[in-house]
Formats: sequence, C-alpha cells, structure tokens
Amino acid sequence: MTSTGQRQAPLAGVRIVEISAFVAAPLGSMTLAQLGAEVIRIDPIGGNIDHTRWPVTAAGDSIYWASLNKGKRSVTLDLKSEDGQRLATELIASAGILITNLPARGWLSYENLAQHRPDLIMLRLTGNHDGSPAVDYTVNASSGFPTVTGFDAQQTNNALPAWDVAAGLYMTTGVLSAELERRSSGQGQEINIALSDVMLATVGNLGYIAEVQTNGSTRGPLGNALYGAYGQSFATGDGREVMVVAISNRQWRSLGEATGLTDKLAMIGPMLDVDLATEGGRYDAREAIDAVLRPWFAARTATEATTRLADAGVLQGIFRTFEQLVHEDPRCTTNNPLFTEIDQPGVGRVLAPSLPLVFRSTPVPAAVPAPLLGENTDEVLAEVLGTSDAELTRLREHRVLARTHTLHSLENH
Amino acid sequence: MTSTGQRQAPLAGVRIVEISAFVAAPLGSMTLAQLGAEVIRIDPIGGNIDHTRWPVTAAGDSIYWASLNKGKRSVTLDLKSEDGQRLATELIASAGILITNLPARGWLSYENLAQHRPDLIMLRLTGNHDGSPAVDYTVNASSGFPTVTGFDAQQTNNALPAWDVAAGLYMTTGVLSAELERRSSGQGQEINIALSDVMLATVGNLGYIAEVQTNGSTRGPLGNALYGAYGQSFATGDGREVMVVAISNRQWRSLGEATGLTDKLAMIGPMLDVDLATEGGRYDAREAIDAVLRPWFAARTATEATTRLADAGVLQGIFRTFEQLVHEDPRCTTNNPLFTEIDQPGVGRVLAPSLPLVFRSTPVPAAVPAPLLGENTDEVLAEVLGTSDAELTRLREHRVLARTHTLHSLENH
Repeated sequence: MTSTGQRQAPLAGVRIVEISAFVAAPLGSMTLAQLGAEVIRIDPIGGNIDHTRWPVTAAGDSIYWASLNKGKRSVTLDLKSEDGQRLATELIASAGILITNLPARGWLSYENLAQHRPDLIMLRLTGNHDGSPAVDYTVNASSGFPTVTGFDAQQTNNALPAWDVAAGLYMTTGVLSAELERRSSGQGQEINIALSDVMLATVGNLGYIAEVQTNGSTRGPLGNALYGAYGQSFATGDGREVMVVAISNRQWRSLGEATGLTDKLAMIGPMLDVDLATEGGRYDAREAIDAVLRPWFAARTATEATTRLADAGVLQGIFRTFEQLVHEDPRCTTNNPLFTEIDQPGVGRVLAPSLPLVFRSTPVPAAVPAPLLGENTDEVLAEVLGTSDAELTRLREHRVLARTHTLHSLENH
Repeated sequence: MTSTGQRQAPLAGVRIVEISAFVAAPLGSMTLAQLGAEVIRIDPIGGNIDHTRWPVTAAGDSIYWASLNKGKRSVTLDLKSEDGQRLATELIASAGILITNLPARGWLSYENLAQHRPDLIMLRLTGNHDGSPAVDYTVNASSGFPTVTGFDAQQTNNALPAWDVAAGLYMTTGVLSAELERRSSGQGQEINIALSDVMLATVGNLGYIAEVQTNGSTRGPLGNALYGAYGQSFATGDGREVMVVAISNRQWRSLGEATGLTDKLAMIGPMLDVDLATEGGRYDAREAIDAVLRPWFAARTATEATTRLADAGVLQGIFRTFEQLVHEDPRCTTNNPLFTEIDQPGVGRVLAPSLPLVFRSTPVPAAVPAPLLGENTDEVLAEVLGTSDAELTRLREHRVLARTHTLHSLENH
C-alpha cells in the first residue's frame, strides 16, 4: 500500500483501444472512459458502420454515435492498408487493452497482437458463443421476454436494447477484472463475450430457466402488473398514467392509508379467500385490488396521486414519453449531478450523463462531448507513437490517414 | 510486475460482504463471486424481504432467491441486536468491501464502518439520487420506453427488469474500479449509485435526451420493427414467429438473395422514391418491404426460414417462450460452456449459468448452487473472525444466531 497524495479517477493512467461499432462495445469502452481511462476509438476512414446510425440531426449527424462515444479520442486509419494495420497494432500495443467486436482474424488475432504486447488484454464481443452473428433484436426474440411483455399473446420486442446495455457493462467488468489480475500476475489474456450468453445468463440469473425446469412452466403476459407482489398502472384524471408498487407489508399498509381505502381493500381477503398479508396473496388478488383502487386514481391528477403516495412511502412513478422525461422530470436536469450541459459538435447544446456511480473520494469526469470522427488522429499518433510531421504528411498522401476531419455529416460525403 | 506461476480467477483472494435484497445488488455481488471473489451475504434471521420472492417451488422455496445468490456464503444474524451489528461490522472490516441497498445510517454508515476498516470500499444503492425510494417498475415508467414499446399508445412495461440488471453490473463496475484505485492509493471510499440514474444515464447514452433536445421529438411505438434500419417480425407457416434484421448493405443484399425476392424488393425504391441502398431508406420503406417478404415466411417453418437466412448471413432469431427457450434452443444446454447442471437445494437439478465472460487464461468458476439461508454462519464466523464454539453457543442462546439453518421453505416457519 502506498499513499500518493491527491487521488485520481479510478482508471487514470489506463489506456484502451476500441475498434467496434453499435451499442455494446462502444458503451463498454465509454464506461471505462467515464471512469477516467483514455479511450482511443479507431475507425476506418469515413467511419464504421454505426457512424450515421439513426437518430440523426436534420443535417445527418448521428445523435446515436455522439451519445455512445462521449469522452473518447477518435483516430481514423485505412485499416485495409499495411500501414494502417501497423499503426493500429502499435496503438494497441501501447495501450495494452483492446476492445473489439470485429472477427479476431489476421492482424487482429490475439496471437498476432500479443507478439507486439505480450501482456495484452483483448476483449472480443461476438453474437453467439460459436462465433456466429446475432444482434440485440434477434437475441431478444429467443429470450422468452417478448412472449410475456404486454397484454396479450402478441410477441412484443423490447424497445430498450437491454442485452446490448448489459453486454457493454459485462465488457467493462471483463476489462476491469482482467486488469486487476494483470497487475498481480503481470500477464494479459484474451476474453470472449457472446451477446446471446449475456441474455441466457440473465434469463438464468432471474430464475426463469430453473422455474421452467422445476415447475414445468412460467407465466404469460401480465400487462403492467408485477409478478408475485402487488403493482399496477392506473389512468389518472388528467389523462396520464402512473405506476404503483407495494411489495412489503409496510408498503401495502401505506397504500391503503394514502388512498383511504384500507377498509375496502380488507374486504378482498375473505371475499377471495386470499391472505392479503402476503405478497403472493396480493398478487393473486390483484384484479380486485385494481378495481378498488382505480376510481381513486381517476379522481386525481398524476402529480396529486404520486405526491400523496410518495409522502406515504408507496413506490410510484409517472409514465412519461421521452419528451416528457426531458421536459418535466426533475431528475433529468442539471439539478441532478449526473448531468452536464455540453456542446456536442454537429448536435448542439445537450444534457449529457456521466457515469451513474458517485465516487466520494475519486470523482469521475463530468460528461464531455464525443470527438469528431478522426479528430484526434494526428495528435494521438504524434503523442502515443511519436509519429513525425513528415511521416503524417506521407501517410496522408498515401491515404492511410483521412485528408481532413470534420463534422460527421460532411465526412461521409 | 510479478509472475506467480499458476494464475487464478481474476478476483481470487477478494472478500466482499453484501447486505441487500431483490435483483440489482444481489446480481452485482453474484457477478463478483462469479469472478472468483468470496461473497458473504448477511441476512437477518429468517431472511431478508426477498427470501420468499416469487417464483417459488411447490414447497415455497424461492427460485428467484436461489438464482440470484449462487456461489455466495450465507450468514444470518440478528441485525437489530448489538452483538449482531458487532459481528456484521467485524465481517465487513475483514472483507474491506461492502455492497448494500440499506440506508447507510447508524452502524451501517460509512463513517462508522471506516473506523473499523479505514480503507473500506462501500457501495450503496438507492432508488433516486436524493435517497428517495424507487424500484425497477417505477423507474421504468418514467424512462420513455413504455411509451414506445409495443404496437399502440398503450404504456407497456418491460417484463425484463433491465434497470435492475444494468444497475447490478454498474455496481460490479464500481467495486472493481474502486479496488483497482485502492491497490495504488491504499485508500477506500464510499460510492453511491441510484437506480433512476442508471435509467437516465442509459436513456442519455442511447441518444434519446439529445434527440428530444435537438430534433424536438422522438418516435412513437414501432411494434417489432427496428428504428433507422430494416428489421421486422414475421409469422411462419408452422404458427411460429421469427425476427429478421438486415442492417448493413451486405445483409440487405443477402436477405434478397436468401428469399429469392431481390427483384421484387428492388421495385420498392422507384415506387416510394426511397434509396434502398441506405439504412434510412429501408427504414422508411419498411411497410412495403414487410409486404413483399411476408408470404415467403408464411410458406415456411420457422426453422426452414431461419436456417436459410442464417446460411446467407442474415441476422435472424426464432421467438420463443421461456419453455421453448429451455426445451429447444441449442444454446440453452450444457453444450454451451456457459451452463452447468447443478443440484440446487430446495429447487432441484437445474441448468445454471456462470459468468458470460470467457477468460482464456484465468478461468472463472463454473456455476455453483446458492447456499441455504444461514448455511455458512458458523463456519464464516469461525474462519473469518475466529469465533469459538463456546461463543457460537452463547450467541445462539441469545438468538443473535438462528437456532438452525435449513431449507428456505422451512426456515420461515
């Protein structure tokens, strides 16, 4: 143990190279950048396949790309040329950590890269564990969840790419744990993660696999109700909708008190022969509970109802569109330390989140914009590899480097 | 750098105490156990609020609890007694890392615990960043996603507790990065994470906040279609449904070739004045593309259709119930190295996932069962704190320890 005066962000001094696209791997690397690492994202000249991904601005700049690459440095290289592969290899060797969702063949194989950096940590994302491709939407189809999402037998996809988000955070976990191990063993390693394994592990961790194997089956869709406890959504008098959850006995009693309906709710037990003092009993009786509560919500605005419930310690939330979240949720403002207003080139002045972890003693950086594509090519090559101005000029003339870097909307034309 | 011969799991030698319930914090700790850490979960005698959470077996044992606490050691203490708080404090001090979702007041405050372990890392989960409570379902209501999930204006909750899963993995990230920092600074710290901040950060990282601020609005529900590229679900001739995704131009061409519909699909461009050689053009033309493709799927079984598409390099997945996932998906078997068959006391012989990260040089443990509630109390106190048999007897007589540990279904009665 050493004490070094001023403490820095947890990953200060760590450098990572990312060659990837879409959500999972970029999110994993961005999380490491948010922890203080220097993340160099290398793309082909003109950008990777996600560079113009929707949503885009009126001018065609990708809001998606900007949001998933905040705080990284952007280097573009002709990755099909020998010079481009050599420079990328040297950057990877200098960093010692590579995150990629490209096939690990040829110059990008672990075996090749480890010759340039023996203690390399390389984390590779695939669709399935056998290397075959898959994306969030196709993995989600098989997960079971579309069958139980919504109100009827219709298969309903998740609008949130939850498997990509989880995979990105598992990738962060993989890099951090391998780095911890490397600091004691002095050795690196290759790590693989498959998107469908993230889904399968999560389905298992949440008990669905064991439930099917033990009980023979699981449940169908429950609409907005909770499984195994009481929770439901209700329309309010102002045309909004709210979610109400009472899991513990204390929350259940508070729900009765806050609504003044304790006596009526108590009639349900004997009426349906259920024990309302248990979570399971309240789940079984949910239709009757819904019926008793519904008029109370219909007679109030969403704000009145949720304020009353919150004051009583009942869990509640107002359903919001993304527009309403941005315009009316007090947590989605700079009053929440999570957020910083940034000027994102090509996008504008926007509210950007940093890491949702508050380190009391080693603060993590506030949100910073994403780079322009290729913005940092020259400075990274000069700083990290010592590439001279003359060599940069030669590389540019041979089109190993882009002629210029500029806004995303212009770079591609 | 030192080289220590045989390399161990990334977190071998790390000990963590967990005092928590439900999904997020238990998942975060279980992930650390899956990386090789020793995780001691401390519960009140009789179990925490999640100990009988549904789904349960016919005998009432929680499949949920067993699935989220695999590979941990279970200690039960009367946490309201001075002796119980003292023993928990000593265990926390010995571990040096605490994960909790309890209010950090009194004996559980960082200030108090750090007196017993100056370099303590303590990670605390709350509902909102101001400390007010929230759960996945209420956080999700405000996230915007229920508005755009499904086929109509009906608010549709996510059946997957995605915010809990993401929060659990952010917690793993928080512990690992703080441990890395501690190994160089020698100092610990308090870390906070709010479930709603995980939601807000993710909504921001996926571009929705910037989209609303820049473009004024975002999209409504798209059913099972993808946004900004081509993807759709189709009914097949055998009464099943499949998901098809073609994002890149190569995948789009392959979709035409695999279905033999290239020429018909090419008619859509001039018909609708869209450029089908772009992702956005295919998104805009999705209804017409759906119409051309639908009969092809209706004329084939799900297996025939997806096999043909997979062979051509088109992304695809068969929609499955949880039962179908367990019974027919080849990835959900012990042929996938992710899975091990374990004997879970109280539940039975089930397929259990390990960590969805494959470390090539420092293998992580295969899945192991969850403990019985309180199963490890005596051995942990003896091993970690050196508690004598006489003292264990005294503690048991004073009901600081449970009289016995047994199956979950019996412990609570």
